[in-house]
Amino acid sequence: MSEPQATRPIALIILAAGQGTRMNSDLPKPLHKLGGMPLIAHALFAGATLEPSRIVVITGHGAEAVEKAVEDLMPFATCARQEPQLGTGHAVLQAADALADFEGDAIVLYADTPFIRPETLAAMQAARAAHDIVVLGFRAADPGRYGRLILDGDRLERIVEAKDATPAELAVDTCNSGLLAADAQTLLRLLSRVTNDNAAGEYYLTDLPALARAEGLSATAILCPEAETLGINSRPELAAAETTFQTNKRLEMLDNGVAMQAPDTVFFALDTWVGRDAEIEPNVVFGPGVTVESGAQIRAFSHLEGCHVSAGAVIGPYARLRPGAEIGNDARIGNFVEVKEAQIGDGAKVNHLTYIGDATVGERSNIGAGTVTCNYDGVMKHRTIIGRDTFIGSDTMLVAPVTLGDRAMTASGSVITEDVPPGALALGRAKQVNKPGLAVKLMDRLRAIKAARKG
Amino acid sequence: MSEPQATRPIALIILAAGQGTRMNSDLPKPLHKLGGMPLIAHALFAGATLEPSRIVVITGHGAEAVEKAVEDLMPFATCARQEPQLGTGHAVLQAADALADFEGDAIVLYADTPFIRPETLAAMQAARAAHDIVVLGFRAADPGRYGRLILDGDRLERIVEAKDATPAELAVDTCNSGLLAADAQTLLRLLSRVTNDNAAGEYYLTDLPALARAEGLSATAILCPEAETLGINSRPELAAAETTFQTNKRLEMLDNGVAMQAPDTVFFALDTWVGRDAEIEPNVVFGPGVTVESGAQIRAFSHLEGCHVSAGAVIGPYARLRPGAEIGNDARIGNFVEVKEAQIGDGAKVNHLTYIGDATVGERSNIGAGTVTCNYDGVMKHRTIIGRDTFIGSDTMLVAPVTLGDRAMTASGSVITEDVPPGALALGRAKQVNKPGLAVKLMDRLRAIKAARKG
Amino acid sequence: MSEPQATRPIALIILAAGQGTRMNSDLPKPLHKLGGMPLIAHALFAGATLEPSRIVVITGHGAEAVEKAVEDLMPFATCARQEPQLGTGHAVLQAADALADFEGDAIVLYADTPFIRPETLAAMQAARAAHDIVVLGFRAADPGRYGRLILDGDRLERIVEAKDATPAELAVDTCNSGLLAADAQTLLRLLSRVTNDNAAGEYYLTDLPALARAEGLSATAILCPEAETLGINSRPELAAAETTFQTNKRLEMLDNGVAMQAPDTVFFALDTWVGRDAEIEPNVVFGPGVTVESGAQIRAFSHLEGCHVSAGAVIGPYARLRPGAEIGNDARIGNFVEVKEAQIGDGAKVNHLTYIGDATVGERSNIGAGTVTCNYDGVMKHRTIIGRDTFIGSDTMLVAPVTLGDRAMTASGSVITEDVPPGALALGRAKQVNKPGLAVKLMDRLRAIKAARKG
Repeated sequence: MSEPQATRPIALIILAAGQGTRMNSDLPKPLHKLGGMPLIAHALFAGATLEPSRIVVITGHGAEAVEKAVEDLMPFATCARQEPQLGTGHAVLQAADALADFEGDAIVLYADTPFIRPETLAAMQAARAAHDIVVLGFRAADPGRYGRLILDGDRLERIVEAKDATPAELAVDTCNSGLLAADAQTLLRLLSRVTNDNAAGEYYLTDLPALARAEGLSATAILCPEAETLGINSRPELAAAETTFQTNKRLEMLDNGVAMQAPDTVFFALDTWVGRDAEIEPNVVFGPGVTVESGAQIRAFSHLEGCHVSAGAVIGPYARLRPGAEIGNDARIGNFVEVKEAQIGDGAKVNHLTYIGDATVGERSNIGAGTVTCNYDGVMKHRTIIGRDTFIGSDTMLVAPVTLGDRAMTASGSVITEDVPPGALALGRAKQVNKPGLAVKLMDRLRAIKAARKG
Repeated sequence: MSEPQATRPIALIILAAGQGTRMNSDLPKPLHKLGGMPLIAHALFAGATLEPSRIVVITGHGAEAVEKAVEDLMPFATCARQEPQLGTGHAVLQAADALADFEGDAIVLYADTPFIRPETLAAMQAARAAHDIVVLGFRAADPGRYGRLILDGDRLERIVEAKDATPAELAVDTCNSGLLAADAQTLLRLLSRVTNDNAAGEYYLTDLPALARAEGLSATAILCPEAETLGINSRPELAAAETTFQTNKRLEMLDNGVAMQAPDTVFFALDTWVGRDAEIEPNVVFGPGVTVESGAQIRAFSHLEGCHVSAGAVIGPYARLRPGAEIGNDARIGNFVEVKEAQIGDGAKVNHLTYIGDATVGERSNIGAGTVTCNYDGVMKHRTIIGRDTFIGSDTMLVAPVTLGDRAMTASGSVITEDVPPGALALGRAKQVNKPGLAVKLMDRLRAIKAARKG
Repeated sequence: MSEPQATRPIALIILAAGQGTRMNSDLPKPLHKLGGMPLIAHALFAGATLEPSRIVVITGHGAEAVEKAVEDLMPFATCARQEPQLGTGHAVLQAADALADFEGDAIVLYADTPFIRPETLAAMQAARAAHDIVVLGFRAADPGRYGRLILDGDRLERIVEAKDATPAELAVDTCNSGLLAADAQTLLRLLSRVTNDNAAGEYYLTDLPALARAEGLSATAILCPEAETLGINSRPELAAAETTFQTNKRLEMLDNGVAMQAPDTVFFALDTWVGRDAEIEPNVVFGPGVTVESGAQIRAFSHLEGCHVSAGAVIGPYARLRPGAEIGNDARIGNFVEVKEAQIGDGAKVNHLTYIGDATVGERSNIGAGTVTCNYDGVMKHRTIIGRDTFIGSDTMLVAPVTLGDRAMTASGSVITEDVPPGALALGRAKQVNKPGLAVKLMDRLRAIKAARKG
């Protein structure tokens, strides 16, 4: 038997080839979202905590889209295609090329089993010290159609499918999660001996423990709570999993000292980070990639993605922070304001009805209501640079590329097409003229026209 | 006995005269909303699946408002007033004039019983082939004060009110829903013989089976799940019914392949239609009359009423589509954008802080942030026509009626009062002037004034 | 024994000195919010229904912030600091100075026990007629670590802590809420005799009944439902309390005849008042200080704080009413509109994408989309006065201070810096010029530049 150590290199093999027919979707199952991120991200992130030296994702249905997502999420992972799909054992075997020269342990995970905790994977890894094969099992409340783990003490004799089980075996409630750990080369060698001598004509990973035992290798099972092994097979199951994910995340946030009036109305992403004593009002949605520092306040009906909010900042209500928004300390982003790819300086205020995109706003600057950074000319995007302590009048159009110096000011209603030097006032508007009595005349005329049309 | 056939004409009689005192409202009960539409719409729409040749709605309390709603929902229905309200039997009799020349079956429904399924009504209709009177019953978990159906085999002997029931009858758990089907003329004839010889002095529809039997006619009962017969009598009951309605609709959507991260935060209307693989983010509200094609995406905090969203379009977050909004394929309606009575062409973009009303926007056109179609002159509404491949600069005011040709462009901050030819650039703004040092001077002066006021 | 009467003066002693370590927060526990207001507000408002002649709040941890909040909520209350914190008995003793000359009853309340009902406090007060000390108890479903009330008939012999209780005492399920009522001077005199002869070295209020009895005074207990005595000790408990608070408030609203499609998505504050037949759509958040009259409609995704909405007004969707907003009868505040410190006249319309702050809008005036009251000059705020029957064109900047007379009109895109007389039309915009062919040339040039950069 090999001599596994705590520091043996780890390879993750993540099975992501299945069709997920019951999802009733053209989107491959691993790409359906849970906590704002693809299902497969959950397995990848949990596995990543083991600091694996290799990650191999087995793709099949919708392979191209899944491979693209894997590259975005974890660029150093490799993908291997399983075509056709001939069972889980056959799927794992597709990792053979990618692991040909790999010496270390392999852990088999599933793209549609998102709740496995890092602690559980670490326990599987640790159990390898004493056994050649480690299968992850769980006590099922209702074992039903799950495969059963047939144990003799801590030795796993075999895994038996429910449909092949004897009454005595069906009475066993220790079930197979499908996850397992083994020396990578041992795993691949054993798998090459699995046959498809069954009704479905498929190669099953579950044959492994029996094959190992026949070779004199030792197999064991460790157990985790059933909730960790939950698989996703339909949209209602996905919706239920989302509820579980959010409930867990909300409790974690409350325990960490985040204030929430109505946690049930706040939706977090897998990677959302919020500091202690930050406050999140009702009806806030976090997309991926958001960090909120201690003491910031996210007011109701706000939507944040890929952004950072510094301490003391107040966001919303009705604020939309898009990717690349970086909000400084004590800054203020108010209602009906959108910020994208922009740095908002400490103490700056963007309070109402404004679009700030591809821009820098200096410290303590005040951006008036209805301001727009006109960043798109129909073909390209350009940047707007606003200095410190500026005062941008309401309804200022900042036609990028354009730069406004420190302490500059714009008159409200101005269209700014040229740079404004520090301390200067920029104006671009027509002078007001009052036409006495004309409003009354115009309205009377319009009413007459309307009456005539009806008449 | 008459010879009912599957193809006999059908008349619906919908009882909508009751006061609904427990609603604690001036609004007549049939007009309280469930699934975004009046309660009575649910009965009307379920009944309409039988393709009735006549619909008679019996009105009473708040008759004018109810009749107006009925005309909006189902213009070919007629209304008959019940004044005063002397019981359910008396109510049905008010349909006599409207059905004087009608040969066929009548089915009696209730405006405040919204969950009856079309399948159940069809089963009542089918049961008429063998019986003169068909009453809809249900097995009650807690029969309590419900009227009991006293059956002998499949023959319904009579309906007995709980307060008049013997202990043996009270032990019966098959209860009366109030719905029934019969030959229309037979129904009216029998009802004319119902007396008000009871404590309340009312004419009860429940006397019908006994009267029928006395004439040698046959009566039967068919059963449906209790949940279908749920009646609404108070606001908490209405709120509970809404939860039931939404839960059912959300599950139906998930089963049809609609993606929803948080189904519990999405509110559908009775007639909402969403295609497979469309995605609906959290916190979306659908009013009546919305259709969303496959693959469209409705982002968080959006509000849609009476509109159509084509495949590939992305709506929101924070988009409001009002009646008459038609969004083309792959078009984009972004945050803080309102669209009303407008066609948005394929691939067009209206991304930020914009109001488009009474307008047409051509394919691939890009509407800048802060654009407004000024459709109202204080008296009348006018239309804005925007061609294909146009570029509308930010903060453009389009003073309708006005037309912009294909490939036209407007400079940001312009007020467009005259038509713009194809390919032309329209400008309407003052030139920018920078006043060096003036911003600093102005601010210093303002601070001095403020200090002086305080001093 | 003293002779309490129904009309004896009342002093409230509210204990608010505790640290609330389990809240995991720098914010003192009494200031964490429930129903949009600080926890301590709930105790203060419940106690205020007794019309107390004095209120003494005992502060300690975070004393300055708590004292500031108390002053805001109930200016006539006084605060007394407890430093160091040596137990509940010691806390109450800190009220001695403030009550030195007070003749009447004292009732001891807790800042973190927000669900005590006024009726219960009144019952405690009434029970004082027959007993010197009245302790508020409750039947605990799971008595666990609660102190037990040891009663002999209606006489309270003593309060025993769970850890000091005999098995027989532990079997008692009548528990101590901590609230009590007594003659103020008697209370303070007895408390001065409490010792800290216990493991924690603290002075406990619970010693009081036994001390009273030893003096020949009478003590009793009255009981309230356990739910009223719920204390808040952690963020999850606070979140659960918020759910309870909202559930109660929603049911109360429904019972009062308020229409809500989805009550679970509506968040009320402690002091929200909504009239009969007002309608509240899904996803509405009420901050403190909101009143909504009968028949008004609050549409989805609206956010209201410190404002008044009159009968027949329609608010939202996506409307934000901030403190000082007063909306007239039948007025209309539409989507993406913010109103702050402003009176909107009867029948006035502010329909789209507008900021109205520090302003008055006259009856029947129509404010165009994209209008902004430019109320801030960088240093001070100024007011905008708009008359009746005015027509403010879209994208009008109203640079305050500025006044527009009745029936005045502004052309869309105008910047209004000077007053507009009644009936006058104010213009401030450049004339439109069309440059034939220039749009096509510009786009072609931009595309060429982009291609060159890539090349």
